[in-house]
Order: sequence, then C-alpha cells, then structure tokens
Amino acid sequence: MALLVQKFGGTSVGSTDRIERVAELIIRSIHAGHKVVAVVSAMAGETNRLLGLAQQIDPRAASRELDVLAATGEQVTVALLAMALIKRGYPAVSLLADQICIHTDNKFGKARILAVDSQRLLQELEQGHIVVAAGFQGRDIEGNVTTLGRGGSDTSAVALAAAIAADECQIYTDVDGVYSIDPRICPDARRLPLMPFTDMLELASLGAKVLHSRSVEYAGRFKVPLRVLSTFKPDAGTLIVDEDKLMTQPYISGIAGQSGVTLLRLEAITATQWQQVVSMLAELNIETDMLQQSGQWPDQLSMSFSLAAADLLQVTDALQKITENSVITVHHPDQNLAKLSIVGIGIKSDPMLVARIFSLLFEMNVQIWALCHTESRFSVLIAAELLEKVAARLHQVLVTTES
Amino acid sequence: MALLVQKFGGTSVGSTDRIERVAELIIRSIHAGHKVVAVVSAMAGETNRLLGLAQQIDPRAASRELDVLAATGEQVTVALLAMALIKRGYPAVSLLADQICIHTDNKFGKARILAVDSQRLLQELEQGHIVVAAGFQGRDIEGNVTTLGRGGSDTSAVALAAAIAADECQIYTDVDGVYSIDPRICPDARRLPLMPFTDMLELASLGAKVLHSRSVEYAGRFKVPLRVLSTFKPDAGTLIVDEDKLMTQPYISGIAGQSGVTLLRLEAITATQWQQVVSMLAELNIETDMLQQSGQWPDQLSMSFSLAAADLLQVTDALQKITENSVITVHHPDQNLAKLSIVGIGIKSDPMLVARIFSLLFEMNVQIWALCHTESRFSVLIAAELLEKVAARLHQVLVTTES
Repeated sequence: MALLVQKFGGTSVGSTDRIERVAELIIRSIHAGHKVVAVVSAMAGETNRLLGLAQQIDPRAASRELDVLAATGEQVTVALLAMALIKRGYPAVSLLADQICIHTDNKFGKARILAVDSQRLLQELEQGHIVVAAGFQGRDIEGNVTTLGRGGSDTSAVALAAAIAADECQIYTDVDGVYSIDPRICPDARRLPLMPFTDMLELASLGAKVLHSRSVEYAGRFKVPLRVLSTFKPDAGTLIVDEDKLMTQPYISGIAGQSGVTLLRLEAITATQWQQVVSMLAELNIETDMLQQSGQWPDQLSMSFSLAAADLLQVTDALQKITENSVITVHHPDQNLAKLSIVGIGIKSDPMLVARIFSLLFEMNVQIWALCHTESRFSVLIAAELLEKVAARLHQVLVTTES
Repeated sequence: MALLVQKFGGTSVGSTDRIERVAELIIRSIHAGHKVVAVVSAMAGETNRLLGLAQQIDPRAASRELDVLAATGEQVTVALLAMALIKRGYPAVSLLADQICIHTDNKFGKARILAVDSQRLLQELEQGHIVVAAGFQGRDIEGNVTTLGRGGSDTSAVALAAAIAADECQIYTDVDGVYSIDPRICPDARRLPLMPFTDMLELASLGAKVLHSRSVEYAGRFKVPLRVLSTFKPDAGTLIVDEDKLMTQPYISGIAGQSGVTLLRLEAITATQWQQVVSMLAELNIETDMLQQSGQWPDQLSMSFSLAAADLLQVTDALQKITENSVITVHHPDQNLAKLSIVGIGIKSDPMLVARIFSLLFEMNVQIWALCHTESRFSVLIAAELLEKVAARLHQVLVTTES
C-alpha cells in the first residue's frame, strides 16, 4: 500500500466526461490498495475565460482581485471530481487552500508556498476518505487568496506530497512522459523513462511545458519522487529522481522551446540605476533570463535581458518611474521571440558541441537575438516563427544521430 | 453621512458592462458622503451553468460539494466589481464568507446565518475601503463551504447590515420597487412606496421574486430598513419598514404567484408515521405549505402538502425509507402547479372577499388543487399555465377597482 498524490491538469479535467474518467483512474489506485490525495487544476479554458472577464474590466487589474477570481477555477473542479467519486460509492471530500492551510507569501499571481498543514489531510485519509484538493491556490498570512501562477497546480501537488511524505507524486497530463523534444515538432522524439531532477529543472524552466519548474525544484529539494504520466494512455511514464539513483545518463537530455518571450534593452544606464532595476524586478517577482551587458562601466551601460512577453507592460510601467529623470532609452523588438534550449549535464565542457550548434544556426540563416551558455544548457533567443523548424533540425543532428 | 449596504443581484451584475455600471452607482453614493458595503450575487446564468455541470455528473450530487461549486459564482463577481472600483481610483477590497466570518449552520444548500463578525468589515470601512462582499455563501463551524439557497444574497446583505448597524439595506434589482402584482402580468400594477415587513414577508414567501423571504424575516427581526430599487432606473423604490411607521395601509397589499410547485398526497398513513414524515422534512430543511388532512384519526389519515417541484425527488427518496414496511400510497399529480396568493392584513375577517375570490375562480373554470387561508393571505394551488391569466383577473377585480 502506497500513499500517492495524483495531480490532474486542465486537459485531464477539461469536461465532465473527463472528470468521470479521472474518478475511474483514482478508483483503480484505491482498488490497488493505495491511499490517494488528488490535486486538480481548473478545467481547460476556464482560467483564460476568467482572466478574459478581468481584461474586459481592466487590462491592469488589481493583482489581489485577479487571484480571488482565478482561484474559483480549481474550486469548481474539486467539487465536480468529489461528486463523481461519491456517485461511485467512494467517500471523497473536496478541500480548498484555506481548509488545508496552504500558506504562501503575498506575491499575488506568483505566490510561493511557505507551509502546508498536513493534519487535516492525514485526518481525512485516516477516515478512509479520498481527498480532492484544489491546486494552484493558497492563502497569505492575512487570509488573502493567492495563486501560484500558471502551472502552479504541479507545485501544489509536490508540496502536499512533501507534507504528507507521499511515496510518489504522480503528475497526470496529456503526454505520456518527458521527451527529448516536443513530439509534435519532431517524430524522432524519444521518451525518457528516467531523468535526473537537475535536467528536468532546466527543461521545465526553458519551456518544456510538461512540468512547472517550481514543482521540479520543490520535488528535488524535498526528495519527492515525481512521475509524469498520461491520463488518457496510462503507462509507466517518466520517473524523475535524484542523480545518484541513475546509473547512466544521456549526454543531451532534451531540447526545449519557449515562445511568448521578449527582449528588453536599456541604454545609457548607470550601475546604480541598474541596481534599482534589479530590485524592482525582484519586487515584482519577474523572472528574467539571457542577461547581457555592454557599454562603459559604471555610467554608460547597455543592459539587455529576456522576459515573458506577458510581463512586459508591468515592467515598462515600473521602469518609467526609475528612468524618468534620466536619459535611459528602453528598446524592445516588436517581434515575438522564442527561447530555444539544449539541455544536458556537462554541455559546456564540449566546445565542439557549441560549434556545431552555431554552424547549424548559420546554415539555416537564423538571427540570434541573445544567447546564454551554462554548465548544463545552451540557449538562444530567435524569432518565434522559426522555433519549431530549428528545434527539429537540432534534435535530428544532435540527439537522433547520437543514439 | 450614512452607512449603507447595497446588494446587487445577478441581473445587475450579469455582464462586465453591467458590473462597471454598478461600480458607478456605488461611487455616486461615496460622493454623497456615504460608506458602502456592496454585496453581490453570481452573474446572471452562472449559478445555473455551474449546477448544470453538477447535473451532468450526478443528478443527486452530494450537497456539500454542490455548495463548494455554487459558491464560486459570487467569488467571481466580487473580484470583478472590486477591479472596476479600483480602476476608477476608489480603494476596494473583495471579501469572501470565511474572511468576514459568515457563520451558518451546516444545512448545505439552505444554510441559515448564525453569526457575522463585524470586526473585519468595520476595520476595512475605517480604512476608507469600499467593501465588496460575496453574498449567498457562508461557512459552517467546521469550515465547510455552505450556501444560503437561491436568493440568499438578499439575506447576506441584511445580515451584514444588521451586524454593522447600517442605516439602510438597499436591494438593487431589475424592478424599481414592489408592485401590487407582477407588472409583466398586469399593466395596472401599482408600485408601493411603503410597505410593512409582515406583508412583504407573505408576498416574498408566496413567490413575489423581488425579495427572498428569509431576508425580509431578518430585516424585520433586526429592524433593518430595507429598500428595493432598480439598478437600471435609480429612483426611490419601495421602503419596507415596521407597521408602526406606516400611517395608512392598503387593504390588499398585493398578489403573488409562484410556479414550480407540486402537491404530494400520502394515503393510509398513521399519525406516528406522519410524525416521522414531519421530522424528515425538517431534517432535510424542506419548506412545505398548503397542508391538508382528511381520513380517520389516528391510523387511516390522508395528508397532503405542497412543496417546490425541485425538492420532490429528495422527499420521495426519503419517504420510501419511512413507508417501506407499510401500505402508505404516495401520489403526486404529474401536472405542474402554481401557488396564487392574495396578501393583505385582515383578509380573513372579510368573508365577502373570500366569496368573491371563489366566484371569480369558478367563473374562469379553474380547478383548485389545494387552498390555504390565514389572517393575511389567501392562497390556492392551480395549474401553472393558468397562473398569469388568473392573477391578472384577480388584480383587476380586487385591487384596481378598489382604488
């Protein structure tokens, strides 16, 4: 008998029929003798519908209220899934963030989980109940509703798994595991049966949509075995574990692409102002990447970094306050950009690999807007419309022919 | 400067445009120097959409989970209305049932408010915030989500008004006051500028949809002046107050109709079994009316009563347990019935009036399924499709010609 946390994403619970199918999947685990805490997302499309309503009222809607709004999506799903289990004769109980005390900080829209009180969960499980917990949502210390940001239900699942020391946290999704590249882009994509936390973390933060990066980070930190598997085609999926549990490891784990990215360049900025910008970004909890610096230190710097296009408005608003009494110029290309990344531990130590990547990009006549090269990844910022073609070509040359 | 609770129903907040208009209405009160607590319902159609999802999964869905589901409707509206106020530069804060401690009993779907903690509300008002509170929802002592039943947002508004000793509880709706009969049925309908609590209570419980009966009951008990007025055509509306504040009073206050009613008849029932039935109905929190008894006491009784058609399934289920070892027969006409009521203090003391009602019904060849005659009302159960025609005719003869 194992204690399982099973997370079902928006597509898996996208209709009442699918919710019924999820109920059947959970019951299969119960029959196998396991205890289950299910964590669910909003039904596919629901979060967008809700944010669309907010958009109609105010494109820069108050973030506290956006969270109150968005949190309803998961509340609908937990109620429906609990109903589907109860209808089948299995005692289930839905629980919201305040009922299981998911405490977060107060960064609305991007909150981090600070603590989870396992008492209520364990009590319900002891009474033989299947717990259906709302993902994505939390409460700050004042009792305000918070949300963990897109994909945050993965993080909720891992946090609950860590709190109750679950044997496995299973992320049910619409793909049957982690692939070396998005299989829709490249038919040669390989499913990886095992993967170390660190590589998964790079892939997730670089746009492999299969898992939310923060959830992988939590799982790695709390040593929660994490399994990615399909709701629609149950199979062993991909198990993500500690490096030391892996005997062998592929050189290149995978290729990830992330669109909806933009690049921001600040010119004629001083080091002091740059310090203010960095503080502001931290304050707003904006994730940046691909940081580059040029110009003359300390008062004629040129700084550029990438960020999610969705965050651009908020950042340029905040930048105006910092830059208003100075001659800083803010540029951002009006093009949609995408970040393409090759991930694998030890990439940096192979100069030949980097040379091959560059020559492939030049062959395809791809403009590189920015690049970033670390121990375990090599990323380039390119035009979004080239992403799929370039990713498929790199996978073909670097992954398929290596195996 | 007055302290106002303003409640906006589903039609008033039925779209983002309408929510913006509600924000303007609230701001008008703020400019007039008042402090405002707004209480809102789910956007029109939303509760039905949610219950439709539940229906797809289980027509007899677990009531605890139905409440978790339904409560999301109001949560969406509070967030959107707070956004609309904040966009206009007015500090607003949305609050949910657990945040303002609306404690209820645990009769899911039909909960009664036991207590409201005014502290958080008063604190927000002191800080100059407009409070936007979720109507309809509560929490029981274990922290489970409860709802107050259809129309319960009126009750929420009155309960909050009582808790903070508001000067007036204003119910904004799609009609501009209380009429002597539904104006859609009868063009001669008269708007009543003032009305006593008791008459309003009878009208509300008899189907005049303008106010939820429990809210009128609360308002009467806690002496909260209640005003019904239109969101779309602001005007003085109808003020509902204590009898002793009224100098004169119309003889017949109004005529109300309520469809979606059915009649249940139990035959060959013993007094002991009837006692069990009454307890069961109380347990399930089912409202009944038009109780009639015939047959031989104590073991060959025939009992009949009316109830909402929506409650029929639940009641017949429960009846089976009580009646299974006996020869009780349960009948209910497969016709849709409606309750038509004439309300006015002192009706019973005028035998001529009753005679006129009967002769009008006979003239129109209306079958009476059941009737009920008290000090301040006279109700008949008739076929639902006859409701409008009969109501208009009675209004014409009894109300219009009297004035």
